[in-house]
Amino acid sequence: MWIQKEILIKPRNRGFHIITREIENQIGELKNISVGTAHIFIKHTSASLTLNENADPDVRVDMESHINKLAPENASHYTHIFEGSDDMPAHIKASLLGNSVTVPITNGGFNLGTWQGVYLGEHRNNGGSRRIVVTINGE
Amino acid sequence: MWIQKEILIKPRNRGFHIITREIENQIGELKNISVGTAHIFIKHTSASLTLNENADPDVRVDMESHINKLAPENASHYTHIFEGSDDMPAHIKASLLGNSVTVPITNGGFNLGTWQGVYLGEHRNNGGSRRIVVTINGE
Amino acid sequence: MWIQKEILIKPRNRGFHIITREIENQIGELKNISVGTAHIFIKHTSASLTLNENADPDVRVDMESHINKLAPENASHYTHIFEGSDDMPAHIKASLLGNSVTVPITNGGFNLGTWQGVYLGEHRNNGGSRRIVVTINGE
Repeated sequence: MWIQKEILIKPRNRGFHIITREIENQIGELKNISVGTAHIFIKHTSASLTLNENADPDVRVDMESHINKLAPENASHYTHIFEGSDDMPAHIKASLLGNSVTVPITNGGFNLGTWQGVYLGEHRNNGGSRRIVVTINGE
Repeated sequence: MWIQKEILIKPRNRGFHIITREIENQIGELKNISVGTAHIFIKHTSASLTLNENADPDVRVDMESHINKLAPENASHYTHIFEGSDDMPAHIKASLLGNSVTVPITNGGFNLGTWQGVYLGEHRNNGGSRRIVVTINGE
Repeated sequence: MWIQKEILIKPRNRGFHIITREIENQIGELKNISVGTAHIFIKHTSASLTLNENADPDVRVDMESHINKLAPENASHYTHIFEGSDDMPAHIKASLLGNSVTVPITNGGFNLGTWQGVYLGEHRNNGGSRRIVVTINGE
């Protein structure tokens, strides 16, 4: 069985945000899959998807502080600078963190660890709504 | 054909470890798949899965030294500090390296390059056993 | 439906290169898939696959400058040094960026965002031809 949906998620501030529930809510068919995978893919190059801790919000704060150190704004070696100082760092962050996650499906739901949530990394100051393609395959 | 197994891998010291064989050994059904994919997913946010060189053990040593420089302990900007100085760096490493790998299956086995092995990145000082979900799809 | 091909892509200079078209051209069967996924996997540990901006070539230049800062040559902590000063950094870059991308397939083609392209990260000075396994599953 294949299910594919292109969903638009609401605009977020720059930083990391848990979107597990927002995705699950849009794919009710998930409950009919006993074993499979969900491929969650963001159609942008300045935002990312990753999995990380869903409990303490400080983890998301620290992820943002730290990724800003790994890919700072206004580095002297950047040449792609005409879209704003947040743009080239956003591209770097997107490739370091990744643009998709694949999650196992077991007994009608995402088979995540207790502490795992799907993170949206919004790397632009004003990224707007983001487009995500969810492709579910299973039986 | 779908095969899904949740396996527990034995505790490892902090650092990088090759677990290709430990995973293959637990999924004998692999030999019945002529073409497909294996999704190998770790249900934790302080350990990672990646692919890297399976020959010289020094690569694993250097990976650990280097990732410790990219996500050091006790950075002054961390606010999530109550679970130990190795905890927030572990979350950062998990997202930089990724929490799953997908490997092609060809003629009954993982179709890896000659020098590729599945690495567990254990990023906690005492991570204990780690839980991995392997989802195989193929024909 | 399963389609799997192992393709050899032509040698590239060290740096980032868009290979979307080179891959699509080798899998004409893509046009018969209405919904599915394409798993694109590189069988090497010193080159990477990622998705990033397909428009301004400066993004690829800056990605190379920046990844060289995150994983520099001749760092004093490297012990795996006998294959050249570009080798250990290449292994680190491969794990940071990833060795595969999975792309949704919709209506006979890759369902990428307008600005997304498949990047090969060639991290060796003389990496030669690189071997990629494309595994397509869909209906």
